[in-house]
Amino acid sequence: MSGGSDYDVVIIGGGPGGYAAALYGASAGLSIALVEDDALGGTCLNRGCIPAKALLQTAEVHRTANHAGDFGIVADGVSTFSADWSKVATRTTGIVDRLVGGLAGLIKRRKVDLVTGRGRLTSSGGVSVDGKELRGKAVIIATGSVPRSIPGFEFDGELIVSSDHSTRSSSLPERVAVIGGGVIGSEFASVYTDVGVQTTLLEALPGGVLPIGPDPELAGILSRALVKRGTKIHAQAMASPPEKSNGGLVLGFETKDGSEKIEVDQVLVATGRRPVTEDMGLTEAGVRVSDKGFIEVDTTTMATTKPGVYAVGDVVDTPGLAHVAYAEAIVAIKAILGENPLPVDYDRVPWVVYTHPEVAWAGYTEAAAKAAGYDVVVHKHKFAGNGRAMIIGDTDGLVKIVAERNGPLLGAHIVGPWASELISESYLAINWQALPEEVGAFIHAHPSLSEAVGETMLALTGRSLHG
Amino acid sequence: MSGGSDYDVVIIGGGPGGYAAALYGASAGLSIALVEDDALGGTCLNRGCIPAKALLQTAEVHRTANHAGDFGIVADGVSTFSADWSKVATRTTGIVDRLVGGLAGLIKRRKVDLVTGRGRLTSSGGVSVDGKELRGKAVIIATGSVPRSIPGFEFDGELIVSSDHSTRSSSLPERVAVIGGGVIGSEFASVYTDVGVQTTLLEALPGGVLPIGPDPELAGILSRALVKRGTKIHAQAMASPPEKSNGGLVLGFETKDGSEKIEVDQVLVATGRRPVTEDMGLTEAGVRVSDKGFIEVDTTTMATTKPGVYAVGDVVDTPGLAHVAYAEAIVAIKAILGENPLPVDYDRVPWVVYTHPEVAWAGYTEAAAKAAGYDVVVHKHKFAGNGRAMIIGDTDGLVKIVAERNGPLLGAHIVGPWASELISESYLAINWQALPEEVGAFIHAHPSLSEAVGETMLALTGRSLHG
Repeated sequence: MSGGSDYDVVIIGGGPGGYAAALYGASAGLSIALVEDDALGGTCLNRGCIPAKALLQTAEVHRTANHAGDFGIVADGVSTFSADWSKVATRTTGIVDRLVGGLAGLIKRRKVDLVTGRGRLTSSGGVSVDGKELRGKAVIIATGSVPRSIPGFEFDGELIVSSDHSTRSSSLPERVAVIGGGVIGSEFASVYTDVGVQTTLLEALPGGVLPIGPDPELAGILSRALVKRGTKIHAQAMASPPEKSNGGLVLGFETKDGSEKIEVDQVLVATGRRPVTEDMGLTEAGVRVSDKGFIEVDTTTMATTKPGVYAVGDVVDTPGLAHVAYAEAIVAIKAILGENPLPVDYDRVPWVVYTHPEVAWAGYTEAAAKAAGYDVVVHKHKFAGNGRAMIIGDTDGLVKIVAERNGPLLGAHIVGPWASELISESYLAINWQALPEEVGAFIHAHPSLSEAVGETMLALTGRSLHG
Repeated sequence: MSGGSDYDVVIIGGGPGGYAAALYGASAGLSIALVEDDALGGTCLNRGCIPAKALLQTAEVHRTANHAGDFGIVADGVSTFSADWSKVATRTTGIVDRLVGGLAGLIKRRKVDLVTGRGRLTSSGGVSVDGKELRGKAVIIATGSVPRSIPGFEFDGELIVSSDHSTRSSSLPERVAVIGGGVIGSEFASVYTDVGVQTTLLEALPGGVLPIGPDPELAGILSRALVKRGTKIHAQAMASPPEKSNGGLVLGFETKDGSEKIEVDQVLVATGRRPVTEDMGLTEAGVRVSDKGFIEVDTTTMATTKPGVYAVGDVVDTPGLAHVAYAEAIVAIKAILGENPLPVDYDRVPWVVYTHPEVAWAGYTEAAAKAAGYDVVVHKHKFAGNGRAMIIGDTDGLVKIVAERNGPLLGAHIVGPWASELISESYLAINWQALPEEVGAFIHAHPSLSEAVGETMLALTGRSLHG
């Protein structure tokens, strides 16, 4: 590589954006240093998606064990199950440790240099780590994000917590208030409700859970399912800072129905995340940062305003999803290699909420497609009529597919069993801009949940089987 | 329609092939009579795929409940679960009844005339049902198949049984021998083993389970998983007719290691199925039937040798899968409508075995691709490294994808958690003849099982993330 560089690429941040850039770059033959001041794997592996989904699986097993009798599986003795949260935490830690260990092994086998310490951009475009400077032909910033607090709700890690705490806690509150009905708030409400925690969810916007993002019909199905299982959901709710009382908290909030006070043992603030971009020498080095703290990039290459410096993942103002960070990392590495990458199509990335029922979507909602000027046709297929959904005992939900009239598929929206996995096929079809006639002719195994996707696509052709 | 016809289409047989033809044809505006002498839904709904998968789900719940402690879900009391097979049978019947009822409602709403009785082709091309003749512009034969017995193993429904009996039985044998390690035999071995039945599986061919069909590596993973859980598998085993003894049976068999005798309570014969084509007036009407009893068809239209008469599903010598019957029904209806249908690509249909672990594939195996003359590249990705597989506690298995060198995907082979649903995305990509570069650029939600598919496809591009 060019003279004076220690590495082809120096990456700051060992979360999904950073490690994906390291792994993909190394597989393409680049020499790479990966700088991380905490645990390899970042928020996602250590405090985010992975432990959160482990907790959701715990809730799933709790549900299954307590409903085993519905399947003819009967206990020799008492059959009530409860969650031992310290054992749950031990299992979660085991999973995180295995994944972090596996990642560390992979990083090592690909000969990526893992540098421990806090990376900072120097004015000359290098990266300083504890006084030592690493020079790369290119630098990728992937320092991620942290939970955002709100005034009067400062995190103390015990009474007022963020997902950073709740994903790895070894105890459960008896009564919890979740502030924010976005993806993180909804997932925790689903877990807590299912393992018997008295759960109140407060969302500032109208609707209830997932007010932004998915088709409102899908969000409504999730809201109703949570309420039916016992979650108390208040929409258009504005909470006041909580006050300590008897070892717990009193939380007041106002809705259009008036004001209310509840006693809880813990408040989980899930009102969003903010990028980690301060005190890293960015502006001084010529990397432009927005008012909200996001690094400004050209998303066709993930290049920042400073030549040779790229940014990927939660530090840029794109969907804050680990798999988007992966995709951006690949774009950045290809750009560094001069390969003219295909940019991420942010309007069509897959979104998944791992609640029960799961919610997943890719592409335009019906409303967004209409707003974008499309003449749309929409078909839906409920899981209630799907044989495999009956068999697994999980029939709540539907598949909804949006297509341009006489044109390609525009969006797929799934709420129900294994929506998280079913979305992959629809995502592929949507990103391929497939016509309903093309995908409607394709075969789905019988019986399968994915038949619900197939039936919906077939119905868009004007004919159908069960659709 | 043409003069003298009562219907556009008369269909003999109300299983997947017949009812799909009826539903799809009716949605295209055709007038249809559907002739069935037994329960609507055929083998699949009443005695086949649907109840079999209900039993497999029961086994899954049994496993989950008995391993709930691994997830930190602990019982207040005794935590051993067993299967109450009479309750299991009641649940299965409930599912079958709901599906058959739903199908009957759909048939009625689409104004298909359901005619009860045994249909027979007349020499003039009509269909006689109990002496009454129905005339259609076209006739579709979809009379399906029945379990095939072997000499000395005649079904009595109690000691020597077929899947027809076992899918709907309200009691479990304590010790069972399964003759045949194909899809049906493997699925029952998986169910029985998991609910505590002493299970011996005898397969005449070398290898063990699934000797024909999937990649041998996948079959081997399933075999080892079954053996680990307690199934006794004997390959290259030839069983002699069983003898009654103490209310049970003594079954002798020979393998290359010598001869052995086991005592069992029941023998399940799962050595294949034969088409139902006898005594229906086929040959007399000019419909050619093969030596093995299959109706000969031109698979581009599903037309038989008698003009105006079509055949679909298990009566034709194509893969005996409900979803293939659906697809053939659509081909037949389109041919009847004069629409020049796209024929089923039998080399690339999805196959699913709902054992634990599940096995699913579509397209060429590595060996078949090589035999067909392709220069192939193969990549594999184990579920052991997949975050979601760890989370759900089900890491046994892998994804294996076969592509032509510098060419399109040829086959996908999955063994592991939810392979049955994961195959849909790969199936789509394979039938689209996608290039690894095209599908490797696509994004999979994190964490998901489908990432294992994505990692494998990406690895085929020569670079990878975790692959």
